[in-house]
Amino acid sequence: MRTAEIATALAARLDGDGMIEVDRLVHPDAAKGPSDLALAMSAEAAAALERTRARAVVVLAGRPPPSGRFDAVIAVDQLRFALAKLTALFDKGPAHAAGVHATAIVADNARVAPTASIGPYTVIGERSRIGAGTVIMSHVTIGADVVIGDDGLVHAGVRIGDRVVIGDRVIIQHNAVIGSDGFSFAPDMGPREPYPPTTRLMRVHSLGNVVIGDDVEIGAATTIDRSTLQSTVIGSGTKIDNHVHIGHNVAIGRDCIICGMVGISGSVTLGERVRLGGGVGIADHVSIGTEAIVGAGSGVAADVPERSYVAGYPAVPIEKLMQQQVFLGRHRSLQQRLESLAERVAALERQTKP
Amino acid sequence: MRTAEIATALAARLDGDGMIEVDRLVHPDAAKGPSDLALAMSAEAAAALERTRARAVVVLAGRPPPSGRFDAVIAVDQLRFALAKLTALFDKGPAHAAGVHATAIVADNARVAPTASIGPYTVIGERSRIGAGTVIMSHVTIGADVVIGDDGLVHAGVRIGDRVVIGDRVIIQHNAVIGSDGFSFAPDMGPREPYPPTTRLMRVHSLGNVVIGDDVEIGAATTIDRSTLQSTVIGSGTKIDNHVHIGHNVAIGRDCIICGMVGISGSVTLGERVRLGGGVGIADHVSIGTEAIVGAGSGVAADVPERSYVAGYPAVPIEKLMQQQVFLGRHRSLQQRLESLAERVAALERQTKP
Amino acid sequence: MRTAEIATALAARLDGDGMIEVDRLVHPDAAKGPSDLALAMSAEAAAALERTRARAVVVLAGRPPPSGRFDAVIAVDQLRFALAKLTALFDKGPAHAAGVHATAIVADNARVAPTASIGPYTVIGERSRIGAGTVIMSHVTIGADVVIGDDGLVHAGVRIGDRVVIGDRVIIQHNAVIGSDGFSFAPDMGPREPYPPTTRLMRVHSLGNVVIGDDVEIGAATTIDRSTLQSTVIGSGTKIDNHVHIGHNVAIGRDCIICGMVGISGSVTLGERVRLGGGVGIADHVSIGTEAIVGAGSGVAADVPERSYVAGYPAVPIEKLMQQQVFLGRHRSLQQRLESLAERVAALERQTKP
Repeated sequence: MRTAEIATALAARLDGDGMIEVDRLVHPDAAKGPSDLALAMSAEAAAALERTRARAVVVLAGRPPPSGRFDAVIAVDQLRFALAKLTALFDKGPAHAAGVHATAIVADNARVAPTASIGPYTVIGERSRIGAGTVIMSHVTIGADVVIGDDGLVHAGVRIGDRVVIGDRVIIQHNAVIGSDGFSFAPDMGPREPYPPTTRLMRVHSLGNVVIGDDVEIGAATTIDRSTLQSTVIGSGTKIDNHVHIGHNVAIGRDCIICGMVGISGSVTLGERVRLGGGVGIADHVSIGTEAIVGAGSGVAADVPERSYVAGYPAVPIEKLMQQQVFLGRHRSLQQRLESLAERVAALERQTKP
Repeated sequence: MRTAEIATALAARLDGDGMIEVDRLVHPDAAKGPSDLALAMSAEAAAALERTRARAVVVLAGRPPPSGRFDAVIAVDQLRFALAKLTALFDKGPAHAAGVHATAIVADNARVAPTASIGPYTVIGERSRIGAGTVIMSHVTIGADVVIGDDGLVHAGVRIGDRVVIGDRVIIQHNAVIGSDGFSFAPDMGPREPYPPTTRLMRVHSLGNVVIGDDVEIGAATTIDRSTLQSTVIGSGTKIDNHVHIGHNVAIGRDCIICGMVGISGSVTLGERVRLGGGVGIADHVSIGTEAIVGAGSGVAADVPERSYVAGYPAVPIEKLMQQQVFLGRHRSLQQRLESLAERVAALERQTKP
Repeated sequence: MRTAEIATALAARLDGDGMIEVDRLVHPDAAKGPSDLALAMSAEAAAALERTRARAVVVLAGRPPPSGRFDAVIAVDQLRFALAKLTALFDKGPAHAAGVHATAIVADNARVAPTASIGPYTVIGERSRIGAGTVIMSHVTIGADVVIGDDGLVHAGVRIGDRVVIGDRVIIQHNAVIGSDGFSFAPDMGPREPYPPTTRLMRVHSLGNVVIGDDVEIGAATTIDRSTLQSTVIGSGTKIDNHVHIGHNVAIGRDCIICGMVGISGSVTLGERVRLGGGVGIADHVSIGTEAIVGAGSGVAADVPERSYVAGYPAVPIEKLMQQQVFLGRHRSLQQRLESLAERVAALERQTKP
């Protein structure tokens, strides 16, 4: 890629040579020569520009690099926007070969697009369909009647159960599980003695599926259980981090952000653009309104209104949590005031004794 | 299956035609025709009966469907009991072929029952035994000297370490790990300098195994570490959700329910019928009594008596937690009362000044 | 192994026969005969010495076994030190064959040491290198340009992404993921209508890698995301338990202990010998000082100084947390004192009424 093309893609200002060819985006200290583009957006990385071997550099507008050291300087306005654009430009994706690997086992009646890539030791079940440009890496299990859209990326070790439907441009990280059974049991109504363990807790089987929209990302080791009868739903644009547990019958709206280690119990509903911090737990059947935010580590046991910000265990509005924490933090002064009041009252009592 | 058979299986009342053949259990809106049995137990699903294409329906007794619309109406008393029975009747299980797949690698001295099914790319180690009717899906690793009982179901990507023993009718969801090493280290007693990292923390190796009873369910991505010398034990009938961590030397009794993302440290003991809510953490060597309940999100640092209900961080009896939360919720009024008392005392002091 | 060799390895005192050959280390009750070495370090196991079939025993110094029952008695001083040494002596490791399994797919330009073992259905990418004596079990995915050092052990189902670098003697438990993409998104700056979901949240791609030192242990189902541009770093000697999430750009020092289900957000820094209890969550960009301890279940939102001990949600110094808990525990007496003070003030007011 040439420096001029990159500046254009970023809608950024280029000073210097637009014809320099670069093929790696690196920290200034990791640059090996003129084919590396140094990225210096933090103060620490900017300081490293004094000693980098790169000749082309991306900096924040208003923080020019040492004068005369570079042949090309691209100056961007928006740090994270530029970072997203730049890393996308330079990401070649995981190494994979075109076509269906010789060791992949694809059911005869499955349909794999000619431009899709199926990795070694991957298994694809009956009647499943893989869309154009989609890359399925190695050791992936895809059940029967699964649909995966176009331009997706399924990393190694992912398990996709029967009947799961996945949209376009979905990225699924390693060892994620889509379509495991819901965790749902009914107490048996039969006689309890003689002790028969099979009838103590009866299993509610999962006959439904999981439906995932477009542009969703699903983190490594994340699991999404299928619905009892209908569909567990993940809305388009929603991003899910690693180790997230999404229970059966859950419905998640569009463009939500769900951070790592979140646990969402069965039948929970999330609106659009909801943000759940890391480690949040949500009790079953709870509803979280559109654009609500739940702070990291919170436990949500009741519905959360739209556009509210809650946190804590149990989660309360954030101002309330902070007041409670201030109150707790002042416990010593509270007790001292109580003590001193008691002394003053005792003194008054002595004084007014008849 | 015929409607009469289903009514009999549910011990439910059937009105209408008992000879209708149905092969799918669906939400009323998902019914495509007369071979679908519509399940309408929620108010929402009952409302959908007005427009369903199904001709046979299961409803809650006392909530009859629109009169004359259906050829067969099965009325059940117990919602969740019926749901368990019905979903079991209609669950065909994951698609799999009979016998040992050509690509499965089974050690010569392993014994696989003729009625068991071993999926593609599954590996079974020396001297291991797989019971009758058990289905092992694809990409499963089974170590040496493993025993799995009859009628089990092991989903894709499960890892079972050497010497693990598993009972009958056990279901293990995708990518679960049974028999990883315990997390146990000893500080080295040797000289600290010159710095030798291998001797700073010495590993306590896991020579024991994991023993799992009958009718256990283990969730996706759940991990169970093996014991140092003896066995990590999961009692019969116990159900474990996704992303649960069970440490080495843990002993779990019968018929427990362990919700998602629970972390159980080493050497913890659970009695029978214990219930752990989602995200609970239990410190090592803690003992939880029979039929105790631990609320979701709690951190348990001390033993929990039988039949008690604890919650919070650290977990305390639930009434105590609720009183604490009420107290915290009243912090403003408490501070106001303190303030007003202080004013009244000051007034008294002014009044009684000699 | 002979009893004399074992005593020497433990630097322990041996009473009796040093030539007894033993090949299993077991609980006294699990001993089957003279080739078993009984380990009796707990009171419970010591009591079992009365009935064991073993003829050689390891006990704690000062707690001799029943006189005359054993041919060899090894007495150790340090319980956990001895446990580590002993279990290491008797651990044969997971069953595996020498060399590269016929079904393993190793890229032509990858370099596997002749003494390494590569299990069935394992895939190793372009230019990757596997060191001497390293055992890679079955179903492992190793990407391109990966380096794994000597004498390592990679259990079944592990996924190692492109460019990951791993030191010597590293143990990675089953289904762990090293080198998944970071969870990092930027809000799009473009027009929001017409609604284009691909541009709502722009992905920051991960171009960096993960670098793991020597003597590291990584738990089952643990995930470590690679860095945006540079390296997510795990220092030598650090031990990581199951279900741990380590975000992109994290830097962890040497000899840390990270218990199960810990979640470490992006760009967090840990010093050396930091200890994180189970279930701890750490917000992004937080720095934890050398030898700091974070109690189990805590949520850390701010930097933690060196050698401090913090706990709670949000984490505060442990003494502060305990004072807060004492305060909360006393809420009833506090309210009663407030009540009684109010009554006494009211009485005083009545008395002093003019």
